[in-house]
Amino acid sequence: MSTPIITFLSDFGREEWFVGVVHGVIGELCPEARVVDLSHDIPLGNVARAAFILEAAAPDFAPGTIHLAVVDPGVGTQRRALAVRARGQFFVGPDNGLLEWALADPEARAHSIGEAENLRRPVSPTFHGRDVFAPIAAQLAHGAAVEDLGPAVIDPHRLPLSAPHLEGSELVGQVMLIDRFGNALTNLTAETLEHVFAGVPEARLEVRVAGRTLRGLSRTYEEAPRGTLVALLGSSRRLEIAQVGGDAGTRLGLGEGDEVRVALGG
Amino acid sequence: MSTPIITFLSDFGREEWFVGVVHGVIGELCPEARVVDLSHDIPLGNVARAAFILEAAAPDFAPGTIHLAVVDPGVGTQRRALAVRARGQFFVGPDNGLLEWALADPEARAHSIGEAENLRRPVSPTFHGRDVFAPIAAQLAHGAAVEDLGPAVIDPHRLPLSAPHLEGSELVGQVMLIDRFGNALTNLTAETLEHVFAGVPEARLEVRVAGRTLRGLSRTYEEAPRGTLVALLGSSRRLEIAQVGGDAGTRLGLGEGDEVRVALGG
Amino acid sequence: MSTPIITFLSDFGREEWFVGVVHGVIGELCPEARVVDLSHDIPLGNVARAAFILEAAAPDFAPGTIHLAVVDPGVGTQRRALAVRARGQFFVGPDNGLLEWALADPEARAHSIGEAENLRRPVSPTFHGRDVFAPIAAQLAHGAAVEDLGPAVIDPHRLPLSAPHLEGSELVGQVMLIDRFGNALTNLTAETLEHVFAGVPEARLEVRVAGRTLRGLSRTYEEAPRGTLVALLGSSRRLEIAQVGGDAGTRLGLGEGDEVRVALGG
Repeated sequence: MSTPIITFLSDFGREEWFVGVVHGVIGELCPEARVVDLSHDIPLGNVARAAFILEAAAPDFAPGTIHLAVVDPGVGTQRRALAVRARGQFFVGPDNGLLEWALADPEARAHSIGEAENLRRPVSPTFHGRDVFAPIAAQLAHGAAVEDLGPAVIDPHRLPLSAPHLEGSELVGQVMLIDRFGNALTNLTAETLEHVFAGVPEARLEVRVAGRTLRGLSRTYEEAPRGTLVALLGSSRRLEIAQVGGDAGTRLGLGEGDEVRVALGG
Repeated sequence: MSTPIITFLSDFGREEWFVGVVHGVIGELCPEARVVDLSHDIPLGNVARAAFILEAAAPDFAPGTIHLAVVDPGVGTQRRALAVRARGQFFVGPDNGLLEWALADPEARAHSIGEAENLRRPVSPTFHGRDVFAPIAAQLAHGAAVEDLGPAVIDPHRLPLSAPHLEGSELVGQVMLIDRFGNALTNLTAETLEHVFAGVPEARLEVRVAGRTLRGLSRTYEEAPRGTLVALLGSSRRLEIAQVGGDAGTRLGLGEGDEVRVALGG
Repeated sequence: MSTPIITFLSDFGREEWFVGVVHGVIGELCPEARVVDLSHDIPLGNVARAAFILEAAAPDFAPGTIHLAVVDPGVGTQRRALAVRARGQFFVGPDNGLLEWALADPEARAHSIGEAENLRRPVSPTFHGRDVFAPIAAQLAHGAAVEDLGPAVIDPHRLPLSAPHLEGSELVGQVMLIDRFGNALTNLTAETLEHVFAGVPEARLEVRVAGRTLRGLSRTYEEAPRGTLVALLGSSRRLEIAQVGGDAGTRLGLGEGDEVRVALGG
């Protein structure tokens, strides 16, 4: 891979210099890498939000991409630092559940990097993004194997995700994030829907959320009259609740964790 | 062109991963391109604002630059997707008026790219930034000709711009944007002023806005006493209303669409 | 230096196109450079804040890094424009105190660049970031010597910094910035503390701020019970006041300029 891509996700914000310094470390250690910012506006310490964003975004990147993720309220404590090879990509971050999607791959290989060679010394106890994670991401971009970075971790911290479940014939999931457009993204993926409702035309599905029932799935945000609430499979192939030309999240008062149910229509 | 530049303008915001994913697609398809973010803070669906920013910024970029612009409330509908060669540069975006400045070039060549080869398949009906526009921008960066991307479009959607006009001897324009510094940028360009007031010294021009009359044009934001309202030709060569050391937009209560008149002083 | 790094710090914000245009100029003039954004959210015209961020961030970058800093309320006036070689790096910006940390190096070499060759012509009186500073940064990235860019400046504008001082046996400093995490960063560096309290164990230091006395220095943000106020040496090796799992700035009502005292505990 002549031009490796390193994505970067954090809760650092953009007002101070922390994001820039991490870019600088990677630029120094691996000048040929392209660093792509995913988001640095994760609410402070919100590991679950960042884990969801990583899960939603990572599949859009090429095999071999390195994902650097730093939402790390436990920096400097005994929490481990991880490099993970999973799903054909690489993931670097704290062992606090942030890398859940990578770790959910049965083939995932996680290694502890806190004692790796070639960290940035002395390692600050408060900024592992700069001193631990960025140097390891750069090494992976140079082709290092995760196995060579430190001992295998067989019990990484997993995120207690609220997985979709069935109640009778209803599939029950939840809202994971309201995006800038007011669309409510859920944890119900196209794969799950296809598995549970195999062979059912999308037009016969009913989506229940916030006391409403939406019939059928739309294809786009715009194919019904303005103001209509619609359910659709969004660009990351998961069920979204949207309002044509508007903001479904505000309209319905939706927030993270709100229940979304899918059933076969009558 | 060994290091093509692709600018990127959108209303995606930075909280989620959409901007990063587009960077990733370009990085994968054209590793040698430099992607330059113009802004991702366009108010949602505000095509006119984005069109103005593109018009103001594009001339600062080198010939051959590719401008990727995605403010696309009609994504997934029948609206066409365009690649345009105009003014020595390239423009990629939805056919909704966003590319107005390019299309206003009489030499512009617009082609429909919705059925181009080498899109990212399957094309999501809700994220053409990732699946249509970014791949086309990458192909242009590789030297593709717009003519090879799809059929010519001879009736692109044009933006009903409020062009400056003359009322008697007064030139009448309007405020297009209040920038972060509180400067009110107008649609009155240096070229228009020179055309209408050929040979008139700047000191004899009068600018009328919000009930005020400003006499003469300043050269900088700082050459009059603090608090003074001034009119000047800003860095994109259009008339601006500014306050020395302050915020003219707030001071005068200016907003988009407010009238600005220029006349020959008495 | 095959892949020079140019950092970029400004008060331009991200809503308009100014940051992107500067990236474009550098990309055009020095395609091999990597541009790293430090921050563009400096409060408008706040030179002292930007100077502090540059001081805090620059040491994290490699020798030879070029720092482009544009917080420039006097743009277009008689204020000079500078290129400075200092501390093994390069600094480009207005002569208004922004480059204080570079200039405080006794070995600093400052040169006036306002009349340099190869600026972007015509130079706009209102956007030297694009027309003066970016082209000079690109030239430095190409290996130009600061001495060749213009006449030496022997009396650059210095920032009247409130340096830490001793009152009896107490070291008195102040809060410089409250970061996104609510940590209050001070102007008391590890070097100053070591100098004043040579040989004293950190556990015996007392930090007095906002009527509180914090005993000893912590190593991380998380090694005391949630809610505890702690003092520690942060990642840029300066004293910070933090709250475990919280926001010390808000809790203590801290702001820039608030006094912080360090003394030997009883």
